[in-house]
Amino acid sequence: MAPKSVSTPAELPADDPRHAARATRSAGRQMRSRLLDAASRLFRERGLAGTSISDIAAAADAFPSQITYYFRTKEALFVEAACREMLYVARAAEEAALQAHTPRDYTRVLVETVTATDSVAFFTEALTLTRRRQDLAPLVERTIERLHGEGMRAYASQIERHGWKSLRDPDASSRRFWALAVGVMVEGYAMGRSAEDLCEEMLRVLGDQAATRPAGDAARLHLVSGREVSDSESPDGEKSP
Amino acid sequence: MAPKSVSTPAELPADDPRHAARATRSAGRQMRSRLLDAASRLFRERGLAGTSISDIAAAADAFPSQITYYFRTKEALFVEAACREMLYVARAAEEAALQAHTPRDYTRVLVETVTATDSVAFFTEALTLTRRRQDLAPLVERTIERLHGEGMRAYASQIERHGWKSLRDPDASSRRFWALAVGVMVEGYAMGRSAEDLCEEMLRVLGDQAATRPAGDAARLHLVSGREVSDSESPDGEKSP
Repeated sequence: MAPKSVSTPAELPADDPRHAARATRSAGRQMRSRLLDAASRLFRERGLAGTSISDIAAAADAFPSQITYYFRTKEALFVEAACREMLYVARAAEEAALQAHTPRDYTRVLVETVTATDSVAFFTEALTLTRRRQDLAPLVERTIERLHGEGMRAYASQIERHGWKSLRDPDASSRRFWALAVGVMVEGYAMGRSAEDLCEEMLRVLGDQAATRPAGDAARLHLVSGREVSDSESPDGEKSP
Repeated sequence: MAPKSVSTPAELPADDPRHAARATRSAGRQMRSRLLDAASRLFRERGLAGTSISDIAAAADAFPSQITYYFRTKEALFVEAACREMLYVARAAEEAALQAHTPRDYTRVLVETVTATDSVAFFTEALTLTRRRQDLAPLVERTIERLHGEGMRAYASQIERHGWKSLRDPDASSRRFWALAVGVMVEGYAMGRSAEDLCEEMLRVLGDQAATRPAGDAARLHLVSGREVSDSESPDGEKSP
């Protein structure tokens, strides 16, 4: 289900209607967020089938009817909670990666952050669910657009800031990053692998994303990714011996 | 559940015990395979939650007790059916790709075959399920090992046969291929994308896997995958000018 614009349950008669509307809107937002927090925690621990609406209500100190009021169904709540966690982990990864000084550090910090939690596995479960519940697809679609859009912008701005050279166009780079994260983590979680193993496996299949610019070298390294081969690029910025 | 060695239900008294054992073993194998066929069809159409053991029994013209006899639970049958389909599509892709004459054709045929069916999405659902059902992990683990092992061998033999040059080590190449297939297809199925769109998206994020050897030209291409950058290697098999 797409998140509705927050409705204002008009429970309280009030002297100043605008004030009351603001207060209930804000209370509504807080309750929504509290329900999402509790749902995320329980869904991650026990999965969709292992969690009931009344478990979530109890954990959030709320009534089951509040869940159906804000989210309609358990599946819609699952997908919304997973989408939120996916955007959180993506943002956390980008923030952590701001500290990186080389393209390889940058990639490593991104991958470490993303593989340290099960957010990607949670989101993958939401994708799998959405296949059978196309009514939930619009929310997933918006999440994926934001993920790629923000990922691409963060990546492009890092590239520009450091004067690195991307090995592919930033949009393909971001899509490739997240597709590999999903593929590596859904397999890794099925096999019960550790976060460290997931991190190493993802770094291994991901390879380099960007390169430092050459310091005017004689080596001629050609880009052999995607469809371009260019003379002026050096993926590692290394000099000829 | 790991597939047990096929048991022989000793229903028939027989004159020649060896003959009878062979006959029941073979009947058992046929029934098992018929149940897997029916289960695959229904699970793909309706998902795990939308399919019951009695639906599958009815579709296979069998009794529900035969399903529990051979597979124990619906979830174990789901995972075994999905693993079998995944190995089938991998083999179909390798066979189709035997006809390819260039590295780019080879990759395209692989990707076209893999994105033409929902086997990868089916398998991803099994991976997601296995996360919560670690008793099913051994079968998934063996499937993934076969997938990567056979994929790597098929790829390496194509590379050798045509004298191509792989852009990464064949094992990483195979793992990367399947991780991207899972990532692209689980997202694409959630969004209801067409097989053509999935194919183009996967080709885009996958990029080149191998290159032809040069007919002796002046370009110098260096291997820039994983952690190695070596001066003596050339992904295109090209010599220094």
